Amino acid sequence: MAALTFDLQTTDSASKARAGKITTDHGEILTPIFMPVGTVGSVKAVSQKQLYDDVKAQIILGNTYHLYLRPTLDILESAGGLHKFNGWHKPILTDSGGYQVFSLANNRKIKEEGVIFQSHIDGSKHLFSPERVMDIQRTIGGDIIMAFDECPPYPSDTKYAKTSMELTHRWLDRCFTQFNSTPDKYGYTQNLFPIVQGSTYKDLRKASSEYIASKGATGNAIGGLSVGEPEEMMYEICALCCDHLPVDKPRYLMGVGTPWNILENIALGVDMFDCVMPTRNGRNAMLFTSKGVINIDNKKWEKDFSPIDDGIDCETSNYYSKAYLRHLIKSKEILGLTIASVHNLAFYLHLVTEARKHILQGDFVSWKNEQVDILKTRL
Amino acid sequence: MAALTFDLQTTDSASKARAGKITTDHGEILTPIFMPVGTVGSVKAVSQKQLYDDVKAQIILGNTYHLYLRPTLDILESAGGLHKFNGWHKPILTDSGGYQVFSLANNRKIKEEGVIFQSHIDGSKHLFSPERVMDIQRTIGGDIIMAFDECPPYPSDTKYAKTSMELTHRWLDRCFTQFNSTPDKYGYTQNLFPIVQGSTYKDLRKASSEYIASKGATGNAIGGLSVGEPEEMMYEICALCCDHLPVDKPRYLMGVGTPWNILENIALGVDMFDCVMPTRNGRNAMLFTSKGVINIDNKKWEKDFSPIDDGIDCETSNYYSKAYLRHLIKSKEILGLTIASVHNLAFYLHLVTEARKHILQGDFVSWKNEQVDILKTRL
Ligand SMILES: [Zn+2]
Ligand SMILES: [Zn+2]
Repeated sequence: MAALTFDLQTTDSASKARAGKITTDHGEILTPIFMPVGTVGSVKAVSQKQLYDDVKAQIILGNTYHLYLRPTLDILESAGGLHKFNGWHKPILTDSGGYQVFSLANNRKIKEEGVIFQSHIDGSKHLFSPERVMDIQRTIGGDIIMAFDECPPYPSDTKYAKTSMELTHRWLDRCFTQFNSTPDKYGYTQNLFPIVQGSTYKDLRKASSEYIASKGATGNAIGGLSVGEPEEMMYEICALCCDHLPVDKPRYLMGVGTPWNILENIALGVDMFDCVMPTRNGRNAMLFTSKGVINIDNKKWEKDFSPIDDGIDCETSNYYSKAYLRHLIKSKEILGLTIASVHNLAFYLHLVTEARKHILQGDFVSWKNEQVDILKTRL
Repeated sequence: MAALTFDLQTTDSASKARAGKITTDHGEILTPIFMPVGTVGSVKAVSQKQLYDDVKAQIILGNTYHLYLRPTLDILESAGGLHKFNGWHKPILTDSGGYQVFSLANNRKIKEEGVIFQSHIDGSKHLFSPERVMDIQRTIGGDIIMAFDECPPYPSDTKYAKTSMELTHRWLDRCFTQFNSTPDKYGYTQNLFPIVQGSTYKDLRKASSEYIASKGATGNAIGGLSVGEPEEMMYEICALCCDHLPVDKPRYLMGVGTPWNILENIALGVDMFDCVMPTRNGRNAMLFTSKGVINIDNKKWEKDFSPIDDGIDCETSNYYSKAYLRHLIKSKEILGLTIASVHNLAFYLHLVTEARKHILQGDFVSWKNEQVDILKTRL
C-alpha cells in the first residue's frame, strides 16, 4: 500500500483555486472537498448508506478525543480499526483530539510533555502527549491523522500566541518522530498532516507555515481559524498560510465554515474543509440551500409543499417538502434531524463539486462571486 | 376507485391462521401483516426510504390525535392528505384518536356526545365526537379509518365494561351514519373498521363481536386488549372475538404486541397487527432478532462484531455489527435509535412474512411453536 498522493489538476487563472485528486489506500478524493464530521464514528443523525448515496461523501472525519473515550481503543483495535467498526470504507481523517481536550475536557493542564485532562464523561484522568496521540490515531486507523497541537483562543496576545506556536512546533517534531518509528496497523498507509498555528499574527503564521512546509508531509493543515475572529481576518490569514505552504500538497483548512466561507477559501487555495455546521445547524432548523438560507422553523414554510431543495442532486432533498420537514422539526421528530442533516451535508458536497467543475472549466471566480450573494440570502 | 377487498387465500388446517390479500386504492397488503406506527406522520427515527427498502412495510399507521394537533387538519388538507404530505404512497390506517385522548390528553370528560379534552401540547380545548372523528380521518386521508370508541382500562368491573361497550356501540352507529353521508376527499376510497370492546368479559365480547359483525364493514378490529391483562387472557378473548367476526373480512388486533404474541394471535385468526413496541423498545436498546431478544446495552456485545441479525433480509440488520450499535446507543447517537428501530421493524415484517409462508405451505403450527421458544430466548 502507498502513501497519500496529490495530483494537482488545475489552478484557476483568476484566483488561487485548485482542482485536484487525492489518492489514498481507501480510494480517491476529488478536491476541493468537504468532509462531514463523524464524531464518535457516526455522522450525527446520518446513516452510512445516506452518506454514500445521498450526501455523496468522499471522506469523513472521526474525533480522536471522543473515540478514545468511547468506544475506547481496545474495542476499535479488536474491530480492526474504525473503517471496519463503523462500515465506512472510504477514506477517514482523524483530528488530534487537541481541540476537544481544550473545549470539552475538565481540569486540563498543558505542560511540555502534553496535556493532562479529565474525561467529560466519567471524570477519569488522561494524558495526551504527541507520542500518545500518534499511537491513538494509529489504533483508530484514519487514512489521514493530524499532529497534536495547541489551538490558541481568539483573541490571544502576541506573547501567548508565539509561546503556543513554538510548543506546537516542538510537539510536531515529536509527532513525526513517533509516527515515523511506528508501523501502519491495519495494512494500509496512514499519513500525518502537520498544522499551521500562530493565531492572527502574520509574522507568526508565516514562520509557522514555513516550519510546517519544511516537514515535507503528504498534506498540510491550517488550524486556529474560524475561532471568533472577523471573516476578513480569517481570509487574510488563510491566504498568507496558503502562499507559504507547498503547492503540490493538499491544504486543509480546519473547522471552516459557512458555504460562502468555503467558496472564499477555495479561491485562496484551500483544498479540504470540515465543519460541524451543516449537521449542528441542521439539527437547529437552519438549512443551507441552492437558493439561500432557510429557517425551517418559520411559519412561512408551513404550507410550502415544494421540495426542500430541488437545485441539488440528493434524493432526500428532493423527496421531502419544506412543510413536512418543518412539521417534523416542530414535533421534535428524529426523522426531522436526519433529513435536515442529510440535506445540509448533501448541499455542502454539491457546493464543492460545483466549485470543482467551475475551476476546471475556467469560470470559477465569476461563479463564486454570484454564488456568495445567493448563498447568503435569507429566504 | 373501489372499497377495500379481502381475498382469503388459505386457512390453516391445524389452527385458525389465515393467509390473505387485502386490496386498497393504494395497493395490496399480504396478510398476516404488521403495521409500523407513524405517530405524527413519521415512524419514529425511520425514513420513508428505510420503510420501503429495509423494513419492507406494506401499510403504516397514523395517529389521529397527534396529526389533528400537529401539523393540524388545515395543513394536511392543503397538502392533499397524509400520503402526499409525508411521501408514503402505500396504504395508511389511522386510529380514531380515542386511545390517545384517554392516555395523553388533559382534563378529558366523556359524555354521550363525545369527549372534551385539552391538548397535551398547548392546553387548548377540543371535542372528539363520532361525527367529528369521521370528518377528521376523512381529512387526514387514511385508506382505513377506525371507529371512535372508548377503550376501558384493565381491570374494569362488569358494570363499567358494559356501560362503556354500549356507549362504543352507540358511537359506532353515529360513526357509520357520518361516514356514509360524507364523500371520499382525495379520489381514493376510505374504509371504516368498527372495533370490538367489552374488556375481559366473555359475554360482553361475544355481544360486541356480533354487533360489530352486523355492520358489514370491509374489515373489523379487536380493541381493548394488551392493556395489562395476562397473556393467556388476551389469547382467550382474542380467540372468542375472532370466532364471532366474519370469516371473509380481515381482522385487526389493535396494539399487539411481542413477536410471540403476534404468532399466537395469528394462530387464532388475526390478520393485522400494529404496535409501538418494535420502535419504542428499539430506542431503549431492546432488539428482537431471529435468534431471540438482545439487550444491546449489555457489556457482552461490546466486542461482538457479527451483524445485528443475519437471519433476516434487511440491509441495515446485516450491515452494522452488534458492537457498533451498542456503541451508538451507549453514546446516545441518533443513528443508534434509527438502526435499532429499522432492525426491529424489519424483524416484525420478516416474522409475519415467514408466518404467511408457513400458513401457505401447511406447516404453520409446528413452525410457530418452535419459533415462540426461540423468539423468547434472552441472548
Ligand atoms: Zn454550476
Ligand atoms: Zn421459515
